[in-house]
Amino acid sequence: MKFCSLCGGAISQHIPSGDNRLRYVCTQCQTVHYKNPRIVAGCLAVWEDQVLLCRRAIEPRRGYWTLPAGFMENSETMLEAAARETLEEARARVCDMDLYTLFDLPHISQVYVFFRARLADLDFAAGEESLEVRLFREADIPWSELAFPTVGRTLECYFADRVAQTYPVRNEPLEALRAHYKHDKKI
Amino acid sequence: MKFCSLCGGAISQHIPSGDNRLRYVCTQCQTVHYKNPRIVAGCLAVWEDQVLLCRRAIEPRRGYWTLPAGFMENSETMLEAAARETLEEARARVCDMDLYTLFDLPHISQVYVFFRARLADLDFAAGEESLEVRLFREADIPWSELAFPTVGRTLECYFADRVAQTYPVRNEPLEALRAHYKHDKKI
Repeated sequence: MKFCSLCGGAISQHIPSGDNRLRYVCTQCQTVHYKNPRIVAGCLAVWEDQVLLCRRAIEPRRGYWTLPAGFMENSETMLEAAARETLEEARARVCDMDLYTLFDLPHISQVYVFFRARLADLDFAAGEESLEVRLFREADIPWSELAFPTVGRTLECYFADRVAQTYPVRNEPLEALRAHYKHDKKI
Repeated sequence: MKFCSLCGGAISQHIPSGDNRLRYVCTQCQTVHYKNPRIVAGCLAVWEDQVLLCRRAIEPRRGYWTLPAGFMENSETMLEAAARETLEEARARVCDMDLYTLFDLPHISQVYVFFRARLADLDFAAGEESLEVRLFREADIPWSELAFPTVGRTLECYFADRVAQTYPVRNEPLEALRAHYKHDKKI
């Protein structure tokens, strides 16, 4: 950040009075420009004993499998964001959505939020950001070709919870994600 | 937003190709500047049968009672943000933190996240953004003087869940917040 988005003045980095961290501050109009984490919202969409995965058509991790998810937009709820991303990436409609997993990724200032949902019908297809969209049984999950650890961990939780038929909301720290997610070392 | 924060060029609003919503786009370097919801994280800190509330020293809702909470910063987790805000606003340390309530406020593009926590000791005091910090028993909660519906609803949930001694994570839609929170009509 080099210029003030309000007045075009030069930006300097300093700690404003009453604050305790470096901020981007306009040298002209004194506006403080805050930077905050972003929420990535998505769905674990289930059809009978199968889950819906998308193969990514875009970087990062092009060609790898993911749960449909993307950045939450202003003026929407987390649930709306998750449903919209599922529609955009998998052309799929979901219902019976319940908050399921939340992961902090402080190293990239993101929070991942997945909803467990029921796929409304089998009318799905690859959206613009997907190469392919498919249903997978547990035995067929491409564990070594998943795009992100948050996706793998959410799938692990789901298949474990499905046995007990109880799905508590999970907010695991990054350390747990690192320790428990055995299939991907890329965190 | 009038100027590009990267190059200082003029900003125009249009829908970039491959996108479906109005964005701030630089007319000079073509950078798209996204705006995303912010997370407000806080704590419901409990000491025996009492909960910790802060009377706000700042607007909005100066003079009203709130749970310690504030904007999550880059490079921290939701839990770290909630603990930091509790330290800043109530000079209080918490432990045994568990995710408890999440509320979407799409009209102001915020997501509120409260952790249920145990107050580590009675060494607390008003931070810079608080006029006063106090413990309250359920019967003494100043319901009509609470700062925000998210605070009131979290307290309602807590006192109800405390009876059953089970505290499920709650992600209620705004409609539920409006319908269920009887003490404040300001949503």
